[in-house]
Amino acid sequence: MGLIVQKFGGSSVADAERVKNVARIVTDTYKQGNDVVVVVSAQGDTTDDLIAKAGEVNPHPAKREMDQLMAAGEQISISLLAMAIEGMGFPVISLLGWQAGFNTNSIYGSARIKNIRPNRLQAELAKHNIVVVAGFQGINRYDDLTTLGRGGSDTSAVAIAAALRADRCQIFTDVEGVYTADPRKVEGAKKLDEITYDEMLELATLGAQVLNNRSVEMAKKYGVELEVLSSLNPIPGTIVKEHIKMEKMLIRGVTKDTDVALVSILGLKDTPGVAFKIFAKLAQKNMNVDIILQSFGRDGTKDLIFTVSKDNGEPAVKLLEDMLDDCRIVCNTNVAKVSIVGAGMESHPGTASKMFEALFESNINIQMISTSEIKISVIIDAEEADRAVSAIHKAFIPND
Amino acid sequence: MGLIVQKFGGSSVADAERVKNVARIVTDTYKQGNDVVVVVSAQGDTTDDLIAKAGEVNPHPAKREMDQLMAAGEQISISLLAMAIEGMGFPVISLLGWQAGFNTNSIYGSARIKNIRPNRLQAELAKHNIVVVAGFQGINRYDDLTTLGRGGSDTSAVAIAAALRADRCQIFTDVEGVYTADPRKVEGAKKLDEITYDEMLELATLGAQVLNNRSVEMAKKYGVELEVLSSLNPIPGTIVKEHIKMEKMLIRGVTKDTDVALVSILGLKDTPGVAFKIFAKLAQKNMNVDIILQSFGRDGTKDLIFTVSKDNGEPAVKLLEDMLDDCRIVCNTNVAKVSIVGAGMESHPGTASKMFEALFESNINIQMISTSEIKISVIIDAEEADRAVSAIHKAFIPND
Repeated sequence: MGLIVQKFGGSSVADAERVKNVARIVTDTYKQGNDVVVVVSAQGDTTDDLIAKAGEVNPHPAKREMDQLMAAGEQISISLLAMAIEGMGFPVISLLGWQAGFNTNSIYGSARIKNIRPNRLQAELAKHNIVVVAGFQGINRYDDLTTLGRGGSDTSAVAIAAALRADRCQIFTDVEGVYTADPRKVEGAKKLDEITYDEMLELATLGAQVLNNRSVEMAKKYGVELEVLSSLNPIPGTIVKEHIKMEKMLIRGVTKDTDVALVSILGLKDTPGVAFKIFAKLAQKNMNVDIILQSFGRDGTKDLIFTVSKDNGEPAVKLLEDMLDDCRIVCNTNVAKVSIVGAGMESHPGTASKMFEALFESNINIQMISTSEIKISVIIDAEEADRAVSAIHKAFIPND
Repeated sequence: MGLIVQKFGGSSVADAERVKNVARIVTDTYKQGNDVVVVVSAQGDTTDDLIAKAGEVNPHPAKREMDQLMAAGEQISISLLAMAIEGMGFPVISLLGWQAGFNTNSIYGSARIKNIRPNRLQAELAKHNIVVVAGFQGINRYDDLTTLGRGGSDTSAVAIAAALRADRCQIFTDVEGVYTADPRKVEGAKKLDEITYDEMLELATLGAQVLNNRSVEMAKKYGVELEVLSSLNPIPGTIVKEHIKMEKMLIRGVTKDTDVALVSILGLKDTPGVAFKIFAKLAQKNMNVDIILQSFGRDGTKDLIFTVSKDNGEPAVKLLEDMLDDCRIVCNTNVAKVSIVGAGMESHPGTASKMFEALFESNINIQMISTSEIKISVIIDAEEADRAVSAIHKAFIPND
C-alpha cells in the first residue's frame, strides 16, 4: 500500500497487445491497494516515423516545431494506454506533460525540468484514478511544448516520484534487472537485488545502458528508490538506492565497452601548457576524453596517450596533426575498455591486483589502467574483451 | 493587404508534397503583404489510423481519451506545415488549439467553441509570423483537450476570422468553388462568383457538401466573408457573404439528394393529435423528417406521406406499424429529392411553375413538392434525378 510510479518505454507499448500487457501490470499494482502513476514513452516506431516526416518537408527544422511534433507521440500512447486500462474496468485519466505540471526551461530538444506543479496529479490520485502521464515532454514559460531529450521518460518518472514523494519508482525495461555482466555472454552472470546510485551511474557510463544517467542522478538527489524490472516478466528486479546491505560480493558488475579509440602522441616536446592546449582543443570540438596516460620519453619529450569514443579517433588525430609538429600521432580503434564497479572495493586494497591477476592468468595484456573510488578500468585488445570479462567475473562473483 | 485566414483540409496536407504545396499558397499570400493565419486538419488518413488504434485496445473508449488521442493528429500536421514554411524562408509558428486560445465546452467529440482568447495569435501576428493553428480542437475549463466534431476545422477557421476581424476566411477544398450543379454531371454547370450565407446553407443541406453548415452559420452570425477555393488550383473561388449583387441568374444552384425514403401512411383514421403522436415518436428515435404531405382520403381517413433519410425508411415503417392499426404503411426508397436554391426566387412567383414546366417537358412525374423562401424541392423517381437536374439547370441557368 503506497504510491508507485511506473515507467514503460516505447517498446513496451509498441502495439495493442503490449499496451494491454502494460495495462495488466498497472492494474495489478492498483488492485494491491496502491496509488499508481504511469509514465509512458511514445509507441515503438512513432518517434522515428515523426522524424522521417519532418525530414521530408524540411531537413533542418526549427527545434521548437520539432518538439511540437515529437510531443504528439506520447499523446497517442498515453490515451491508448488509458483506454486499455479503462477497458479493464479501472478508473483512469491520461495527462500530457503540461497537464501533469512539467515546467521546463526553453532548450528545445533537450529541455531540463525546472519544477513539477503536482496539483492536477494529486487531484486525480485523490479521485482514485490511475494517472497515465506523457513522459519526455513539458512546457516552457511561453506555453510552448518542450521535450527532454534522450532518456527523458525515465527522468519524467523520477521527477514525478520525487514531486509526489512516491514510495518507489519502477522502471520497466526489456531485461529483468541489473546484472553483474551481460547474461547472454558471461556464464554465471547474476541479477543484483540491490545496487547504489553511484554504482548504477558507473555501470551506465560503462555501457550497461539500463537506466538513463540523468534519471539516476535525479533519483540520487531526491532519494527516490528505483527498481529496474522487466515488462514481459514482472518479477522483482533490481533496487537502486543510496545504502544497500553489505553482501559477500565485493564488486557489483563487470562491463565491457568497445566504443573506444586509443590515441597516442609519441615524442611530444615538453613545452609548458602543451597538455592543457591539447585537451582544451579536443573539448572545444566536443570530443570527450576518458582515460589519460602520460609517460616520459627520451630527450625531454613525453608520450601522451588517451581514449576517446571510436568515431572521434581519426578526427582527433587530424586535429592534433594540424596543431603539433615533430611528433608521431597514431590511433588504435581495436581496443576495448573492461571495468569492474562496486562501492565495496574502496575499502579492499587487493581489488585491483585481483583483477590484474585474473587477466594475467588469462594471458591478456593491459595497455592502460584507470581507477576511481568505485571503479577500475583497463584498456585491452578488443579481441580479448569477452574473455577478459569472463575471467574477471569468475574471479570476483561467487558462482553459487 | 489585410488579414487572411486560410483553412486546409486533411487531403490538402496528406503527404510531404501536398504540405509543401500548401506552404507555397500560404507564403504567396504572405508575400503579397497580408497577415496570414492558417488552420489545418489532421493529415489524410491520420484520423482513421488513430481511430483504428483506439479500437484495438478498447472498442468503446471514453470520449475524453478519444479527444486526447485525436488531437495528436493536428499537432502533427501543424508542426510539419510550419517546418515546410520555415524551409521556404518565412517566419512561422505553429499553435495547438489551446495555445491559440480556443475555449470550448466539455462535450468531448463534438465540443462547441465558447470563445477565443486571441492574445497569443495577435502577439505572433505582431511579430510578423505566419501562424499555423490546429483546427478541430480546443480546451475546456478543466484544461482537458476537446475536439469539435465533423467539419470542426472549418468552424475553427471561421471562429479565428471572427475573433481577429479578418478581411477574409478562405476555405481550400478539392473543388474550385460552389457550382450551380455538379459539374461532372451537368453540362453548363457554372462556378458561382458569389452566394449568400442562406443559399450556401440550403445547398449544403441539400447534399452539395462543400462547407460545413456550422461554419457557414457562424460566418453569417459574425459577418465573416468566406471564400471557397481549390488548393490544387488556387484561382479565385466562390465568395460567401450576406448581400451579393443582383445577377441575371434567378437561382444559385440545382442539387440532387438520393438519400431519401418516402414513407406513406394510407387510410389513417383522423383522430385528434394522431399526426403529432406520429412525428413525436419519430423524433424520439432521432429520425429526421423532411417533407410532409397530407391528403384526405375517403370515409374520414387521411393519407400522410413524409420523407426520411434512406436508412431510416424501414425502421420508420416498423415503428409506425407497432403504433397504428387499420392503415397501410409503405416505404419507397427509390426516390430522389431535386431542389433549386436562390435568394432571388422569393420575389419571382413564376419560379416554381418554371421548374415544374421543365420537369413536365422532360416527362418526369412529381410525387411531392416542398417550398421555402429560397428553395423549391420536388420528390421524383430516383432514376430520373440526373435528367431532372439537367433539365431544370438548362431552364434556369443561362448557358452563355
